[in-house]
Formats: sequence, C-alpha cells, structure tokens
Amino acid sequence: MLTQAPKGTQDVLPQQSFRWQAVEEIMRQVCALRGYREVRTPVFEHTELFLRGVGDTTDVVQKEMYTFNDKGGRSITLKPEGTAGAARAFLEGKLYQESLPCKMYYISCPVFRYEKPQAGRLREHHQLGVEVFGAKDASVDAEVIALAMEVLKRAGLSRLALTINSIGCPTCRGDYHQALKDFLRPRLDQLCPTCRERFEKNPLRILDCKVEQCQAAIQGAPSMLDYLCQDCAGHFQALKDYLAALGVDYQVDSRIVRGLDYYTKTVFEIITQLPTGTLTVCGGGRYDGLIQQIGGPATCGIGFGMGVERLLLVQDMEGTAPAAPRLYDVFLCTLGAPARLEALRLAEKLRSLGVRADLDHAARSLKAQFKYADKVGAPLVAVLAGDELERGACKLRDMASSTETEIPLNALERVILDKLGGKEHGDQL
Amino acid sequence: MLTQAPKGTQDVLPQQSFRWQAVEEIMRQVCALRGYREVRTPVFEHTELFLRGVGDTTDVVQKEMYTFNDKGGRSITLKPEGTAGAARAFLEGKLYQESLPCKMYYISCPVFRYEKPQAGRLREHHQLGVEVFGAKDASVDAEVIALAMEVLKRAGLSRLALTINSIGCPTCRGDYHQALKDFLRPRLDQLCPTCRERFEKNPLRILDCKVEQCQAAIQGAPSMLDYLCQDCAGHFQALKDYLAALGVDYQVDSRIVRGLDYYTKTVFEIITQLPTGTLTVCGGGRYDGLIQQIGGPATCGIGFGMGVERLLLVQDMEGTAPAAPRLYDVFLCTLGAPARLEALRLAEKLRSLGVRADLDHAARSLKAQFKYADKVGAPLVAVLAGDELERGACKLRDMASSTETEIPLNALERVILDKLGGKEHGDQL
Repeated sequence: MLTQAPKGTQDVLPQQSFRWQAVEEIMRQVCALRGYREVRTPVFEHTELFLRGVGDTTDVVQKEMYTFNDKGGRSITLKPEGTAGAARAFLEGKLYQESLPCKMYYISCPVFRYEKPQAGRLREHHQLGVEVFGAKDASVDAEVIALAMEVLKRAGLSRLALTINSIGCPTCRGDYHQALKDFLRPRLDQLCPTCRERFEKNPLRILDCKVEQCQAAIQGAPSMLDYLCQDCAGHFQALKDYLAALGVDYQVDSRIVRGLDYYTKTVFEIITQLPTGTLTVCGGGRYDGLIQQIGGPATCGIGFGMGVERLLLVQDMEGTAPAAPRLYDVFLCTLGAPARLEALRLAEKLRSLGVRADLDHAARSLKAQFKYADKVGAPLVAVLAGDELERGACKLRDMASSTETEIPLNALERVILDKLGGKEHGDQL
Repeated sequence: MLTQAPKGTQDVLPQQSFRWQAVEEIMRQVCALRGYREVRTPVFEHTELFLRGVGDTTDVVQKEMYTFNDKGGRSITLKPEGTAGAARAFLEGKLYQESLPCKMYYISCPVFRYEKPQAGRLREHHQLGVEVFGAKDASVDAEVIALAMEVLKRAGLSRLALTINSIGCPTCRGDYHQALKDFLRPRLDQLCPTCRERFEKNPLRILDCKVEQCQAAIQGAPSMLDYLCQDCAGHFQALKDYLAALGVDYQVDSRIVRGLDYYTKTVFEIITQLPTGTLTVCGGGRYDGLIQQIGGPATCGIGFGMGVERLLLVQDMEGTAPAAPRLYDVFLCTLGAPARLEALRLAEKLRSLGVRADLDHAARSLKAQFKYADKVGAPLVAVLAGDELERGACKLRDMASSTETEIPLNALERVILDKLGGKEHGDQL
C-alpha cells in the first residue's frame, strides 16, 4: 500500500508528461486566441456549493463525492467537476462588476469521483475546460463548441461527432417534465431501478440512461425540442445557424441531457468512434441559472469539460500522439573530479545559451557514461579526460556520423552551437 | 459560506493567471535545459506514505495534515509536500530500472497544511520543485541549487541569499545527537514547550526554532559540521567547490536543518530580504535514505520545493512582475444578427491565422461594444454595420492613431495581419 498510488489514481511519469504538456499548450493557445484567460480554483470547496450548484439529485452529488470534515468540522468536498468552483470564484471575485463577458479556461484541473475503478474510469482524473459568464447570445455557444472541436483537432483527433440539444429553461421545462412523466408513467415497471428513482425528481436523466430496457421504454417519448418556449427555440435556431456559418457539422439528438442539474438551453457532446465503441471526449452546455442559484446576480453562462486522460487514450488509438522531445543536445563525459568540475561549469554555460546539456553525476566509468549518452539520444557527446583535458581541450563526438574532433575548451560552446544550428537554440533564450 | 473559497485557500482569477503562467514557463525552460522532465502525482496519497516518508515526529505529520477516510475506509491524506509522492511514483513506476539519474520536476503542485491562516500562510498553496534520484555526486547538489537560483533570478528576484549546511547521515548523526543532547540537557528548562518535546525524538529541530529563548539557549551548541563522517565531510567540501566553480555565492549555517525527517547530508535554503523581514523562498536537500525507507532499493536523492505564492509576493515587493499580455489584437463590433454571423466567421478565420480576435456576444449597442473594445485595449477595432456591410465592407479603426479606413471584408484578414506585423502572428500558428 505504501508503494502504491491510491486506487483509481494514476501518476504521470517523466517519460509520459510531454504528452500532457503538448495538449495543454494547444489548449492555452486556442483559448488565448479567443480572449479566454486561465482560472484556478482550490482542490476542495465547501460541500454545500456542489449540493446547490451541481444539484443534490444528481448521481455525482448523491453517490460519488469525496466529502470529509476538516479539523475545524467544516464539510469539504474534493471538486467533482470544474464549473461550480469557477462560478464560485466568479462570484467571490466580484467579476460580474468587470466588463463582461468573462471568459475563463482551466487546464488539467483534477476532479474526483468515487466510482468503481474500471478501464478508463479514474477516481482522480483531469479536465480541460472553459466557462463564459455574461454572454447570452448563441454566438458564444457556437464559439465554445468550435473551441472544443479546435482543441481536439489540433490534438490529432479525427472521427469526431458533435451532438447538440436544447433542454430549455425553467419556463418551458416544467411542461415538458409533465409530458415526459405522463408518457413514462404507464412504462414505469419497464425502467431500471435507478430510473424509477429518477422519475419524480429528475425524469430528464432517464433519457440518457444507458440500460437497454430504459432505451426501449423511451421509444416514442415526447421531445423537449417540441416544448421549447419562444426564447429557447430562437436561441437553438441561432446556434444552428452559427454552427453552419462556421462549417461545424452537428447532429441534433433530443436524448442528450448531460448529468448535471445546472444546464439550461444548449447542451452538447463530442464523441469519437473507437474500435472498442463510442467514447464521449467532451461535454458541456449553458447554465444561465447557476450564478443566481449559488447566491449571485442573474448572470448567464456556458462551458464545457474535456477529460485529458480520455483525450490521450484516443490519441493512442488513432496513433496521433506527438513524438517525445529530445532530452539532451549534448552530454559531457568526464573522468575524475577536476574534469567533473569543469564539465559542470561548461554545462551551466551551455544551458544559459539554450543548449540542453548534462554530465554524469554518479562517478560512473567513461564507458558507462558513453552508453548512457547514447541511450538518451544525445546527438553530441564531449569527453573531458586524459591528455586532451590537460591540453585544455576535449573530444567532441557527433553520434550520427560517429566522427570525433578535438576542440579547445574555450571554443566548445561556439562549436556546439554551430553544430546544433545556433538559430534554433538562440530562440530558447 | 456558499460563495466563499474554503478558509486558507485562494483562487487565481483570470486577470492574475498570466503571472503564474510566466513563472511556470520559466521553470519548464530551466528544467528542460538540464534534462528534467515533469512528474505529476495524485492530490492525495495513502496516509502511511507520509508517516513513513516525511516522518511521524515532524510538525507537518503530527499536526497539519488533511487526513480523512475515503468511502472504502482507507486513510488518505492530501499531499503536505511534494517529495514523498514523487518518491512513491519513482518506486511504483520502477524507474530505478531505467537509466539513472532520474531527474523530475513538478509545477504548481497543490500542497495542503492545516495551519492557522495568517498572512502568507495558506492551507492550500502551490509548489514548484525538482527531485533527482540515483545521482550521488555533489555535482548534482550544486546543479539543483543553481537551478533554483536560476528560476528565481529569471523570475526577477534579486537580493537572494543561499545558505547551505550538512546534517550528515545516520552514521555520523547519532554521535552528534548525543553531543547536542548533552549540551542541551542542562538548558532544558530554557527551551519552549515544543522544543522540550523535540529533545528526545528530534533534537535537530531545536536548532532552527524561531522562539527567542531557544535561540539563546543554543548559543555555543556543538555543530553538526564538526561531527561529519569522512564521506559526508568530503561531500560537503565537494559541494562548496562546485558552487564556487559555478560562481554561486553561499553561506554555511549549521543551524539550517529543514523540517522534514528524510534529509541527509546537504540541506539548503534560499532567502530574500523584504521590508517586512526575511522570507524563505526555497528549501531543499538530499534524502539518500527515503526510497529505502518507503520500501524500495537503496537510491540516493535530492530536491527542493519553492512556494509559488511566495515567489509572486516577492515579485510584487520588488516590482518585477511582468506586464499582462494583450487580450485582443482586434475586436469586431457588430450591429444586428447577420453582422454577428459574419463577424463570428471572420473571428474564427483570424484566430486560425494566429490573431487574437473577438466579437460581442451579448447584443450590446455599438457604443457599448466600442467602449468595451477600448477598455480591453484592442489596438484594432472593425465595425460591421450599416451601409459598409451592405457593400461587403467594414470600417477598421486603428485605436492608437484614431484613424479609420473602409476595408472590403474579403481583404480584412490580410490588412489586419499587415497592421499587426504578420511575422509575429504567423509564429503563433
């Protein structure tokens, strides 16, 4: 137990982290081009925030939260999703007093759900996401959706399918709830036990239940889209127009409802087809009531969340993962303590010039050092030892061509920069 | 309570996050030049890891941990520091079977200590740090220290002072403990209550107690440096030689012991002088016994941790915080839904060319949109409205010179790229 990460959690090891960094850099760039700035909220929040914000009839809140009391007796919960914390920060930071809209993104935010660990289901996973507060027009719905698609495409995902729906607002949803319940009431005994519980409190969730008997029972159920009020219907039509203008393909599916209570109007999912089946890589929607629900002034909002682990999994499946960057440009082999002293000084100088450089820190044999330099793929290896070092010089080996040249130490930096192509490395300074 | 972050935690709001990103980018660059790769470990670990790894006589473990039972009844603790998790990941990932050394860094890792909230003391704060496993030579101690100094300098911190010490190894520390206790025993009643407790289990910690009466009582106490075994003394001398070769100034202070049990040989602190007093911005050391202590093969290690919040505070004090990047290059003002449709399409096109572009998403008046564009500092503003739009054109305003030109829509991208200096923006693609 001591030597294992807690069940349902995973390390990102040094040899894998460039994959995360690459996706995050894409997210940062795509967001910055659209006026989004990063937000970071604490790992835990007061439990009440999620009861009120996410909704106390949702699966997440009822069964899956990491809730505990801190030493002061306050009930605290590790974030189960990213939106409630961002909304709380928007409110506490009085950002509604600034120029709106307020466009935020978050990167690899850890979220926690106490689920049975299974393939692709972690108890701690990480999300990329955006939230926009104070923009009511459907143009921002389209922008948010296009942003998600752009991130996924730049990350190398193809075969993406976007599904949109509108689940209306409190005005029109009441009538629909009634119609849906009237339809389902005679079919109640065909529903799974969970959906029978949902019937009173959260009938919408029955629509996206994955259990086959429930899918059968809802065949022919009324569609929310036929119950939208004028405002919601207009908003949904505008969204479709904007997506068409942007050339973003979509399908409408009235069974998409998402699992969180705060959504209003637009909801959407982006799925990908894998040999193993369909995988949802992104989900989001509008939540025009959320800020008011947690005690703030009426402020509309929209956002999405995207699981990083899933995105990386799809990259693997599609074979579009980027290559690992080179660890070293040059490795300095040394023999003896004085040589190591010189090499450390040289390495620091090279690093200050933008060259990825290192030396042996374990007093290994020259042969072992050479083997190491080869293994880590350093294209240049300098050897500081013996006669050359006494002459104030070293051997520089080009590993690709297996050629070796003697270089005076005081010219080594320049020669190395030349060989690596000074321009590229100068850029890193 | 609903609208407040938990006590002792802080949001990073959108207008501040560029400060964090800038420091993190420095850390990433400095680390990559030295062969360090990022590691990420879960937010929580099995509590036992910290009892064994950090040490069950330390203040951190005894009083300050966020420990709770998960739904499966396992005792879980939110990370109180970064090293134990990284060591566990090294072990679980069997990284000791790879080519060593294994050099890792972590970025803005959240760490949790249940302390009385006070100025500059958060219950959740964030650390940058490195860990190197499997490198025994003092050259790596010097490299790690120089790396920390480089990050702090690039972040704009001056007036840094490095203090180093050696607290020896289990071989030599036993004799020293004895000598220290012999010295302190007649002075026990002059010590603070906490130090009286420390006397038996952890006498070293008495040396860096901040209480005045304890500082007075240890005047003339024996120094660990006089008790170092040959190996530890040689290592410490080598470290001093390497630091001198790198031109890194340091002071030796035998009272530096650090608060965590795992340290051996080298310990160090980097402090800065503020008008309000001395602030430790970085601390670290060698922990050659840690991997074995948590059940792995004997593997030496060294690392440091650096508080991001503190670093940003010092930047503020020194006035060296970077300027906020520009939010938009161009803002598209629109009148009416068809104009907004056109503007959204144009904005997405501009973004794909590396231009930071946006439009109004709240159907505000032209005047309000203009005011907004001015407020967020967009250097260019395009107006899609009225006669021009009917002619397939728009007005483009250069906000600095207050000049306005009519541009055909199909030429707008090119004109905007020209005005912004195409090269700079092409680079972002």
